[in-house]
Amino acid sequence: MSAEKIIAQLKDVSLFRVCSSEFLERLSVSALIRKFDKGYLLFTQDDVAERFFVVLSGAVKMFRETKDGIQVVTGLLPEKTVFGETALFHDKKYPFSAEVIDSGEILSLPLSVLEAELDHNSVFSKHMIGIMAIREKMQEQEIEHLSIQTAPQRIGCFLLKTLSVGEICGGHDKAFENKKITLTLPYDKTLIAARLGMQPETFSRALKKLKADTNIKVSGALVTIENLQALRDYSCSACSTPPS
Amino acid sequence: MSAEKIIAQLKDVSLFRVCSSEFLERLSVSALIRKFDKGYLLFTQDDVAERFFVVLSGAVKMFRETKDGIQVVTGLLPEKTVFGETALFHDKKYPFSAEVIDSGEILSLPLSVLEAELDHNSVFSKHMIGIMAIREKMQEQEIEHLSIQTAPQRIGCFLLKTLSVGEICGGHDKAFENKKITLTLPYDKTLIAARLGMQPETFSRALKKLKADTNIKVSGALVTIENLQALRDYSCSACSTPPS
Repeated sequence: MSAEKIIAQLKDVSLFRVCSSEFLERLSVSALIRKFDKGYLLFTQDDVAERFFVVLSGAVKMFRETKDGIQVVTGLLPEKTVFGETALFHDKKYPFSAEVIDSGEILSLPLSVLEAELDHNSVFSKHMIGIMAIREKMQEQEIEHLSIQTAPQRIGCFLLKTLSVGEICGGHDKAFENKKITLTLPYDKTLIAARLGMQPETFSRALKKLKADTNIKVSGALVTIENLQALRDYSCSACSTPPS
Repeated sequence: MSAEKIIAQLKDVSLFRVCSSEFLERLSVSALIRKFDKGYLLFTQDDVAERFFVVLSGAVKMFRETKDGIQVVTGLLPEKTVFGETALFHDKKYPFSAEVIDSGEILSLPLSVLEAELDHNSVFSKHMIGIMAIREKMQEQEIEHLSIQTAPQRIGCFLLKTLSVGEICGGHDKAFENKKITLTLPYDKTLIAARLGMQPETFSRALKKLKADTNIKVSGALVTIENLQALRDYSCSACSTPPS
């Protein structure tokens, strides 16, 4: 990929949106792009970290494994997501493991280039703090939902987030109002169950209840929502930051 | 409180540990200190934010309320904790509510002073990113525990964290090895239950099971741990980042 194309890709990633041309050029010079197949383990928790990553296509699973050998999925990362950059602040070790779940291209960059920029570019640092603050709020919301939402509500919330535009769950009102909505599940159901902290059988039972309670239809990976407001009323009643 | 005393207090707060004398002076000039009684509501989620806070003494509860009126406790903040600073990145609105749970002194500072510093001080910004990265890792761990730990394991984990030195759950090995440990619960049981996302009756049942399984004793707010390793084996088996 040419330097111009790499820079164009990076400009499309929220972390790099405010970067100067010089910084983008420095990044592009040290960028490596590689195609990875589904199932490829990019790194394991506590591996020494020299690079961080951007999903260009496909998807990546962030996970950890307990002493007991149970895998906990802490993130499903779609295109344009940056990951591994916080290793800089964890003794240069990755705080989680990462595996490719949809084949695609992944760009990697040296943590040293990021660190050098943070050392003198306060505009970029402030922008990164802003991104981390949004992530923190989303994590707080996840903790809240795990504490008080039922399993069917959590699946409903996942569907609404899949429809999201920006931070508005269920997308922009006007785009969806009074329309039957069809969406494709972005990952297979086993992965979604794991991401929601549910056993596959719990997920199946909860999905069945969600269908009965909100009249959504699910056929394979296709979900049809007849009444978006009913789904919102159902899931977002147990949320502190429902869509306005 | 004199400017020197305020600066000494601020130096003891991790966010301000790397600050220049000039920045600390600017902070101290605009600091307000007030004593608040237990039960005082400092701010409500989505209130317009002009200041952020440091707990000097006492303790503060971070919480949110769902549309259904259920309160979710997302943090119990002891002395030296900074809170409300991320409002800067949420349209200058607080992303949660905050209430005093133990009477004490709270220092407040203008968000504008923080913002001005972030605008030009990359050393401070990088330090703040590091603190947020550690908080992010702790939140990921909380999500993990809510997904896979049993209620008694979560209470055990809370006790180990209460004993923590730095990031080591259950404190530094040598300090506690082969010794009977007595600790005082830092908050009342209803609050701890809420923080762990449990109903009071679930908490009581889980605490009973934890006592039976690990031989800890609980008398009022006093907890006696006869065998720290047994408690660790019990709770940390379902954790991806157990104490080494």
